[in-house]
Amino acid sequence: MPSYILTDVASDLWVENFSLRSADLGPPDPIPWSVTKTTLRGGRRDGVDLIRLDNGAFSVDIVPTRGMGLRQGNYWGNRVGWTSAVTDGPVNPKFVNLMNWGGLGWLEGYDEMLVRCGLENIGSPYQETVEAADGSKRDILYGLHGKIGNIPAHHVAVHYDPATKEITVEGHVDESKPFADQIRLSTRLTTTPGSNKIAVRDEYINLRESPSEMQVLYHWNFGTPYLEEGARLVAPIKTVLPRDKRAQEDIKSFDTYRGPTPGYAEQVYFFELQGDEKDGRTIAMLRNRAGDKAVVLRFSIAQLPAFTVWKNTAGLKEGYVTGLEPSTSYPNARPFEKARNRIVTLPPGGSHVVETTLELLDSVEGVLAVEAEIKRLQKSTPVIHDRPVEPFAAEG
Amino acid sequence: MPSYILTDVASDLWVENFSLRSADLGPPDPIPWSVTKTTLRGGRRDGVDLIRLDNGAFSVDIVPTRGMGLRQGNYWGNRVGWTSAVTDGPVNPKFVNLMNWGGLGWLEGYDEMLVRCGLENIGSPYQETVEAADGSKRDILYGLHGKIGNIPAHHVAVHYDPATKEITVEGHVDESKPFADQIRLSTRLTTTPGSNKIAVRDEYINLRESPSEMQVLYHWNFGTPYLEEGARLVAPIKTVLPRDKRAQEDIKSFDTYRGPTPGYAEQVYFFELQGDEKDGRTIAMLRNRAGDKAVVLRFSIAQLPAFTVWKNTAGLKEGYVTGLEPSTSYPNARPFEKARNRIVTLPPGGSHVVETTLELLDSVEGVLAVEAEIKRLQKSTPVIHDRPVEPFAAEG
Amino acid sequence: MPSYILTDVASDLWVENFSLRSADLGPPDPIPWSVTKTTLRGGRRDGVDLIRLDNGAFSVDIVPTRGMGLRQGNYWGNRVGWTSAVTDGPVNPKFVNLMNWGGLGWLEGYDEMLVRCGLENIGSPYQETVEAADGSKRDILYGLHGKIGNIPAHHVAVHYDPATKEITVEGHVDESKPFADQIRLSTRLTTTPGSNKIAVRDEYINLRESPSEMQVLYHWNFGTPYLEEGARLVAPIKTVLPRDKRAQEDIKSFDTYRGPTPGYAEQVYFFELQGDEKDGRTIAMLRNRAGDKAVVLRFSIAQLPAFTVWKNTAGLKEGYVTGLEPSTSYPNARPFEKARNRIVTLPPGGSHVVETTLELLDSVEGVLAVEAEIKRLQKSTPVIHDRPVEPFAAEG
Repeated sequence: MPSYILTDVASDLWVENFSLRSADLGPPDPIPWSVTKTTLRGGRRDGVDLIRLDNGAFSVDIVPTRGMGLRQGNYWGNRVGWTSAVTDGPVNPKFVNLMNWGGLGWLEGYDEMLVRCGLENIGSPYQETVEAADGSKRDILYGLHGKIGNIPAHHVAVHYDPATKEITVEGHVDESKPFADQIRLSTRLTTTPGSNKIAVRDEYINLRESPSEMQVLYHWNFGTPYLEEGARLVAPIKTVLPRDKRAQEDIKSFDTYRGPTPGYAEQVYFFELQGDEKDGRTIAMLRNRAGDKAVVLRFSIAQLPAFTVWKNTAGLKEGYVTGLEPSTSYPNARPFEKARNRIVTLPPGGSHVVETTLELLDSVEGVLAVEAEIKRLQKSTPVIHDRPVEPFAAEG
Repeated sequence: MPSYILTDVASDLWVENFSLRSADLGPPDPIPWSVTKTTLRGGRRDGVDLIRLDNGAFSVDIVPTRGMGLRQGNYWGNRVGWTSAVTDGPVNPKFVNLMNWGGLGWLEGYDEMLVRCGLENIGSPYQETVEAADGSKRDILYGLHGKIGNIPAHHVAVHYDPATKEITVEGHVDESKPFADQIRLSTRLTTTPGSNKIAVRDEYINLRESPSEMQVLYHWNFGTPYLEEGARLVAPIKTVLPRDKRAQEDIKSFDTYRGPTPGYAEQVYFFELQGDEKDGRTIAMLRNRAGDKAVVLRFSIAQLPAFTVWKNTAGLKEGYVTGLEPSTSYPNARPFEKARNRIVTLPPGGSHVVETTLELLDSVEGVLAVEAEIKRLQKSTPVIHDRPVEPFAAEG
Repeated sequence: MPSYILTDVASDLWVENFSLRSADLGPPDPIPWSVTKTTLRGGRRDGVDLIRLDNGAFSVDIVPTRGMGLRQGNYWGNRVGWTSAVTDGPVNPKFVNLMNWGGLGWLEGYDEMLVRCGLENIGSPYQETVEAADGSKRDILYGLHGKIGNIPAHHVAVHYDPATKEITVEGHVDESKPFADQIRLSTRLTTTPGSNKIAVRDEYINLRESPSEMQVLYHWNFGTPYLEEGARLVAPIKTVLPRDKRAQEDIKSFDTYRGPTPGYAEQVYFFELQGDEKDGRTIAMLRNRAGDKAVVLRFSIAQLPAFTVWKNTAGLKEGYVTGLEPSTSYPNARPFEKARNRIVTLPPGGSHVVETTLELLDSVEGVLAVEAEIKRLQKSTPVIHDRPVEPFAAEG
């Protein structure tokens, strides 16, 4: 099975440019695919490693320098992702100061289709005051969505399995420092020639001899053409609630979207989803108004028990986007989640595996079929709270 | 008209080195000029793009990596700029942490002849405490002089117009992120062969569908040989006041300069200038003691209504320098300026244009002529306040 | 005497790769040595300059990009240094945010055998609140161990003296900005072919016309095989005290070490050492249990009057390490040290020289000989305090 190591800092291996085409591996493939790696230069993308994984139908840009995030995709000409107010990305983390704007610096580089949030904290920034032995105090600021999305991968490889025709991009990202949790994200991004899917298999490995704690939120973001006025969220909902007063205003239409609305203030909803009995597999779908295009996320509530929808239907140039965000815990401040036992603990030598599949649909039949699947998972009537409720959020 | 794109991240174009000489474009020019672009390596300048625009008499170093600032110039052997305590610049913003020292991190890279300040805030750092929906509080620190001077340009080009002989370096710098003002600085730096001038034409373009707000301050800085003991500020002053008690001490000599004075504590004066009736064009000049050398700034109070002089006549190795700083508002904390309606609002699709010309004089006749020009602009006797006064500064 | 400049930003000189072998300089040397410089790429080490100085017996990795720190050494197959929880270093300072985690961001890149701490502050982070002229307040956070370890050198050179056979790597690192202390570290790291020693001669030069203040702590760190269960600290102790309650718990065994203990909380002891009468030369040694291996630091209490031992016998993957830390002052908050007159003041044109030698021992005879040397320096019985005491630490 051919494997190509593109980065491995332990052996001081780094490849500036790389290109693998299906034709390089034997007789012409009926569906030509390729994996291309380039190093970007100039502006704020200077020094960013970018890998384009193109299976012939669906291509995805992977950014090792930004924690193995998925910048955007293209499925038969449809852009999969969104247009961020970050105009010149992918932004190298060396230009991102997570402590800017009271911990909102993360926004300086935020333009991905998928950015992982965590591992120390997820959600809004918050501040704690700690007291030293001598009685002096200082403030610790935890920035929006944590650090993992701004840590460059230290190991990157490409694999091709001729038997299954699986093309995989692998990356290792360590969030590890003295006196703290030490965790390795080992991700495998896999697709097959001509497929409408990409599978994201992430393993979070505790690197130390003590337990490590973690949270992770998968911030999947989609704009046009999947998001549009009248687009809808479809999922097997057990519970839904508004995160705050702003979201409360439109709880009745939590599952439908507006068109581009300049100046729109974000609305966030928290969910419990229903999963299948065997292993908790569930589905969240964003479908367009006509129901002939959709993005589908498949994951397991056993691995990712919490789910958040971020509605940000602002102007097209301001970030017209929705986030579908499965996670290990809700994006509240960490102490809130900790008190409700939602932080994952990895024992020494232990790990947590998270598998998510992104699937693109481009037909009415395809969308109807997934809606039917979701209906089968919907075992009970959704509980819709009209205000924030425990244990998901601080009571409003 | 020949144009050369040196950086354009949208098309993944970046040129490591570039050289254009007048002789490259046709028959030898009576005044040979050149534009040279290099990428610096090593130390804290690692990765900095530098463009030297040399018109044959006056050469200026432009730093796309530092927000299209002008690092320093050389006019017939006279250094135009200053010697900063930053010894190893131009410093790549990747090594500058704006949040260091309670928001004074900007100083880590500050060594320019012209650095633009803003666009969110200008002046001293300040801190605000905000309360989240759950009642928790966190502090937001706004760093000295904002961010624009530390954002790398994402588009850089060189143009030559054979008809006018204008040589132009163009750059685009975006201060833009989700949930915030989104503004593009589009700058054109233009000179002609043999000229003693460079024109800085900046357009600030609102990139979003909602209004964006901005402030900008042009921090022009000059040391020897223009600044020296007995050097003088000449301008058509309407009003002048000290910023604070320290400046108050020497209000009587606000327009003259000391020689290098190790340990000198900075003094800052705020001004209203008078402009011509047609379009508000005005002039500020720093002339040496003998009156045979001067730097002249020409701008419009319609575009830049506020003006600040920063006197920092410290030791020669500590930054012996004065700042002549036209701006849209005074360098007070933003809430202070906001309350006095001095923040610029750009409507959707709107922009604000700022034109400034830097002119070098090297003769008594030249200096006298500009002094006469200034005298003609001086329509009324200057009002000199001996303490900070509203609406320019907090009453002292 | 051959000299090779590898970096000099003032002349825009930077060498990507460099290799000098003893054989390059003449007839084969009985002990072949080499100096090799590479530029690392990929992950968080992207752009880091690394110099391997190998004298044939003892090789040391020097990191100009990280303030001329010594990453790790190898002496006849023994690793000299430790295994940090930072898994992918040496980390480029461009990826280190010193303001993260309430000023603990320094830990993001901490993996050296020797990192200099200072020059503004050393020890734990602390926060001060300052009031502006307008009565508004803001917080200034001073991060753990200061900035010098994260400033890239702007001048790097290699020298070889055929007469003395001394091989020297020289580096200049400036901690200098407007309105602040301006200090240049000029370091010379010298060894000879086949030697078991490296000498670190550092000069701290005041670059400005006003006095500059400084603190510096030499954070030498060693793990296995020198550190192990039963390893011991040997030094001519005048006074020892625990830094805090946690260290107080084990004051009785302050000079012996535990084996790897996952979850161990660090313990820190402050010392006064005794030095020789002539120039204060003293010795601190870490010897293994069997007493057949040791690392020895030789320095002067005239240059470095304070000494700290950091015991961090955590799990092998969590940073099983001890720090032997001679310094100009104790690693308390700067105001505490200032009040006790322990800050160094450099007059205009003045400098402070610090010389330290690291020596590796690999025989019982060698260890016994140094123990005898230490015994000769031990003129009086050590005073052992069982709790924090003034003037070294806040009374516990």
